Amino acid sequence: MAADIEADGDASSSAHRVHVPLEGRSYDILIGPRLLERAGALLAERFPGRRFGIVTDTEVARAQLPRLGASLDAAGIAHGTIVLPNGEATKSFSRLEEVVEGLLAARLERGDLVIALGGGVIGDLAGFAAAITRRGMDFIQMPTSLLAQVDSSVGGKTGINSPHGKNLVGAFHQPRLVLADLDTLDTLPPREFAAGYAEVVKYGLIDDEAFYFWLEANRRAIFEGGPERAEAVARCCAAKTRFVLADEKETGVRALLNLGHTFGHALEKITGYSGRLLHGEGVAIGMVMAHAFSARLGLAPGQDAERISRHLSAAGLPTRLGDIPGEIGGTDAIMDAIAQDKKVSRGALTFILTRGIGQAFIEKGVDPGAVRSFIEDQRHT
Amino acid sequence: MAADIEADGDASSSAHRVHVPLEGRSYDILIGPRLLERAGALLAERFPGRRFGIVTDTEVARAQLPRLGASLDAAGIAHGTIVLPNGEATKSFSRLEEVVEGLLAARLERGDLVIALGGGVIGDLAGFAAAITRRGMDFIQMPTSLLAQVDSSVGGKTGINSPHGKNLVGAFHQPRLVLADLDTLDTLPPREFAAGYAEVVKYGLIDDEAFYFWLEANRRAIFEGGPERAEAVARCCAAKTRFVLADEKETGVRALLNLGHTFGHALEKITGYSGRLLHGEGVAIGMVMAHAFSARLGLAPGQDAERISRHLSAAGLPTRLGDIPGEIGGTDAIMDAIAQDKKVSRGALTFILTRGIGQAFIEKGVDPGAVRSFIEDQRHT
Repeated sequence: MAADIEADGDASSSAHRVHVPLEGRSYDILIGPRLLERAGALLAERFPGRRFGIVTDTEVARAQLPRLGASLDAAGIAHGTIVLPNGEATKSFSRLEEVVEGLLAARLERGDLVIALGGGVIGDLAGFAAAITRRGMDFIQMPTSLLAQVDSSVGGKTGINSPHGKNLVGAFHQPRLVLADLDTLDTLPPREFAAGYAEVVKYGLIDDEAFYFWLEANRRAIFEGGPERAEAVARCCAAKTRFVLADEKETGVRALLNLGHTFGHALEKITGYSGRLLHGEGVAIGMVMAHAFSARLGLAPGQDAERISRHLSAAGLPTRLGDIPGEIGGTDAIMDAIAQDKKVSRGALTFILTRGIGQAFIEKGVDPGAVRSFIEDQRHT
Repeated sequence: MAADIEADGDASSSAHRVHVPLEGRSYDILIGPRLLERAGALLAERFPGRRFGIVTDTEVARAQLPRLGASLDAAGIAHGTIVLPNGEATKSFSRLEEVVEGLLAARLERGDLVIALGGGVIGDLAGFAAAITRRGMDFIQMPTSLLAQVDSSVGGKTGINSPHGKNLVGAFHQPRLVLADLDTLDTLPPREFAAGYAEVVKYGLIDDEAFYFWLEANRRAIFEGGPERAEAVARCCAAKTRFVLADEKETGVRALLNLGHTFGHALEKITGYSGRLLHGEGVAIGMVMAHAFSARLGLAPGQDAERISRHLSAAGLPTRLGDIPGEIGGTDAIMDAIAQDKKVSRGALTFILTRGIGQAFIEKGVDPGAVRSFIEDQRHT
């Protein structure tokens, strides 16, 4: 299988390599410690003579940029840096314009590369900026959060948010290389690491029961670091790659990656994309809801939602509407947010439902009335 | 040859059809009278059940929108309209955001379509908005200027301008259909028609000497309307299509379409993208300069530039730097604008040069010093 994990041949590493063999645009995902320190040498070898524009945020600039900058300097690689505010609000039209104009002002040419150094926000924004600058510049993902390493940095979805919903503006644009430096995870706030862990669990829930059980057994070790963490990240990247290869533009099976995301996006929207609910936290609640809703429709065993909820709670994640701090408004607001989600087609609601752990499927004809009454009940549990 | 012109089978027309057989994204260009009146029936047949968002400008809305709206209404097709200011300044980030948010506010879904009704500005902007809304909506070009009918509506280049230069932000996004209604050209201001004619002449100059001579012989008839005009538009669409099929993303031969554009873009930039110099007018001067510069380098016959200049002048176009109204600044400003053009690679200047009429070629290693001294001389002719 093309997306299988290989041990990286490089002597320096307990590193993994996942190859993404998209025709004409194949690329590697390297996962391991000290990759930012090795970046200069890696880029000099893979992209000789190119110049680089780094896009990052204030927090990552403080924690990680010195390592990357020193590595590029040591390799004699020309680079400039654009630093943006940290947070979801950065995925906006005005920040997109700022990055694009910054890349043009730096006179980066079509053959030069953009480096996205940061979490999902930076990766999505910088990748989108690369996609539209000079009608398409190459770019490299250097994800520094667990969420970005296991999900958003792989597969080429880039974009920004709209007042009408998350990720409604963007492009499919594949990176030329992904460097997932595991050391960056050591400095993550625990809440953010847990949010990323929700996406890790998602891969088990979709179609890999064995991985899900392995996660339940190894959750503590993954949170503590070490080889289990590296293995978890690599297995997620390989899983994501399989979906991307099967369906790059999400016309079919790739939509399974949205398990928990229709509910999750709606919850993010009604909480204002604020720190009240991180993306992964919304997905955690959404995944439990997807299992509970599937059980209610008679599709899945009733005990799965409870089991998953225990697992995610133990990881420090919210799992119920009632876990969201503050007031979340009425059922109408949630239904309205769901209706504007981009997975709506011809008025019918599309959901990722499940027949049990590891058995998710796409259901295009979900009755809005059933969703509404389910949410009503959830609001009182 | 796939891009040959066919007579349209439809009874109503002296219409032409050019098929663009891009793999998986093939589309038709229909050229003829009364296509806006026929649009409702055509869209109902080709895109049953879809909804449409029309993007246009104030002037086109007045002159053409009533015809299109009535046709869609008669066919029972749901549609909304976004009207923007007329002019090049509309190709901006803020207008892009306005269109994207307008499409989302109208709750157009991924399967719905954007209609670009207007000239090159509207086609480029609306096509780009379609490319990035929901990571890619389908769109239809309904070009209403000669420039848009023979050039910008075909081939999938979409985008906006940057303070750093024209079309520096954008995407490759192919339309699903192009409807070039020849009746729209009857209401064009003469200066705008002439500007579009510069792009018509370009196809002859690039690689079709016979077409160039045919244009010299039929220029008056083309400006007056009638079958020669229809034939000229159709031959240009077929020529453009051949280049697009050979090299969709402009990594090679498609760059020939930039004949006259490196000089032309620089002149547009230093005149502020204002009404002082229309795009086609910049291209007219640029094509004459490309021939004169090629002659100076000993590549092309000396008399071609003069012959082309007479042809374009007779069509009402400027052909010399001195024809630009007002002050254009020094040679440094022109050189700086050329250097920021996106056809720069690794510091060397890329130009489309020529060995004579119909014999253009791409030259990547042009000496900036030679360009500078040529421009110095041109400023005094």
